[in-house]
Amino acid sequence: MPSMRNFKLTLEYDGTGFNGWQLQSQGERTIQGEIQKVLLQVFKQKVVVFASGRTDAGVHALGQVINFKVRSRMSPRDVQNALKAFLPSDIVVNHSEEVGPDFHAQYSAKGKTYRYTILNRSYPSAKERNFCHFYPHKLNVSRMRREAKTLVGKHDFKSFEAADRERAAHSTVRKIKRIDIRKKDHWITVDIEADGFLYKMVRNIIGTLLDAGSNRLPDGGVKGILKQKDRCRAGETAEPQGLCLVEVKY
Amino acid sequence: MPSMRNFKLTLEYDGTGFNGWQLQSQGERTIQGEIQKVLLQVFKQKVVVFASGRTDAGVHALGQVINFKVRSRMSPRDVQNALKAFLPSDIVVNHSEEVGPDFHAQYSAKGKTYRYTILNRSYPSAKERNFCHFYPHKLNVSRMRREAKTLVGKHDFKSFEAADRERAAHSTVRKIKRIDIRKKDHWITVDIEADGFLYKMVRNIIGTLLDAGSNRLPDGGVKGILKQKDRCRAGETAEPQGLCLVEVKY
Repeated sequence: MPSMRNFKLTLEYDGTGFNGWQLQSQGERTIQGEIQKVLLQVFKQKVVVFASGRTDAGVHALGQVINFKVRSRMSPRDVQNALKAFLPSDIVVNHSEEVGPDFHAQYSAKGKTYRYTILNRSYPSAKERNFCHFYPHKLNVSRMRREAKTLVGKHDFKSFEAADRERAAHSTVRKIKRIDIRKKDHWITVDIEADGFLYKMVRNIIGTLLDAGSNRLPDGGVKGILKQKDRCRAGETAEPQGLCLVEVKY
Repeated sequence: MPSMRNFKLTLEYDGTGFNGWQLQSQGERTIQGEIQKVLLQVFKQKVVVFASGRTDAGVHALGQVINFKVRSRMSPRDVQNALKAFLPSDIVVNHSEEVGPDFHAQYSAKGKTYRYTILNRSYPSAKERNFCHFYPHKLNVSRMRREAKTLVGKHDFKSFEAADRERAAHSTVRKIKRIDIRKKDHWITVDIEADGFLYKMVRNIIGTLLDAGSNRLPDGGVKGILKQKDRCRAGETAEPQGLCLVEVKY
């Protein structure tokens, strides 16, 4: 009998055609569902896949990391090739390796980087419509950068956690390592790296930074929201299709 | 009765969901078909639209130019807004203006720029799968640049015209103003600007440059193919989804 192996894979996916990462009982198309279906074909046994974290419907990934344990003699390269043959074209395995038995895509993660893409002009984009948040109003990017700075560091990000996730006993403290806001032509990208993220934290931060950039918040407004630890104070949740999980660090 | 006006519009479209530019009798989804359907709604009269040229199924545009004549009192801005409201999200009007009665999107065109995008690595891209030609074999980009140089200038491009378009009396002479080949990470873009293009000329040039880049052609091979004026000598037609009409000059 082949020994138990632990495979770590890096995935790119176009989230447009999926109802998010997580397997659904209703038979809706999900990334986890597609992968587990293919792994069943490849290994002829049920394989449960763990991701670094769930992504919501419409959210993309360039570097999602998953792991799964399976009894097999296949090499990581063989696994990648087998998945390539069976996976739909909107999921791609970028990298495949074997890791020790203790590695877990979620619990071993030390940090993550998300990128949020905003299109800031008067008309939308046909080609990029599923990969950006179209924002036709004037934005002050310097102001967005200034306000974003107050979020960097170790803080209680309760104000930026999805309201429906409020529970009694879980920590809402996270450490944001950097927020880089770049502008090129009409495109604004916001890269946020942190040791971890609360549910919908990136999209809530982006909604708040859009408020700051369009002068719907006073100077120092983001710092004030952070202090108040109240989801009602922060901006609207920005659209999912602008979001992409770029990298997970271990 | 309002006077006859001539509107010039610049379009961006994601060609993935279309069976090319040209209206089809079979009811297949085409860009011309979608636009004429919307213009009928907006102007309550049949409007015929002319494009700078047809694009094939799967080919994209960032700067396709069209024109149409219609009796109306609407301003160019009104026309753009009306189209915005009714067009599907994979067609976007970037710009709208009124032009003189002699302007014709095809016959007035002085030059066009196409961009072809190649992904050159061992695994494909999920996000960009509809916007690039995936080429997993090693490519010598310097060699591609060197061979491309011999195409710049005024030449008979008969070797690069689609074989099914061979007709007795039409000129296959065109002038290529520039070919810029850029490489960034795994992405190679080829920009080709010419006074005009033969049918499938860009994709046939790209197929030939891929032959040159992967050493399936000797040094000077592209020049030889050009001289022979025979479609059978050139490379395969590269895939449509890598192609994008970037700009039309008047």
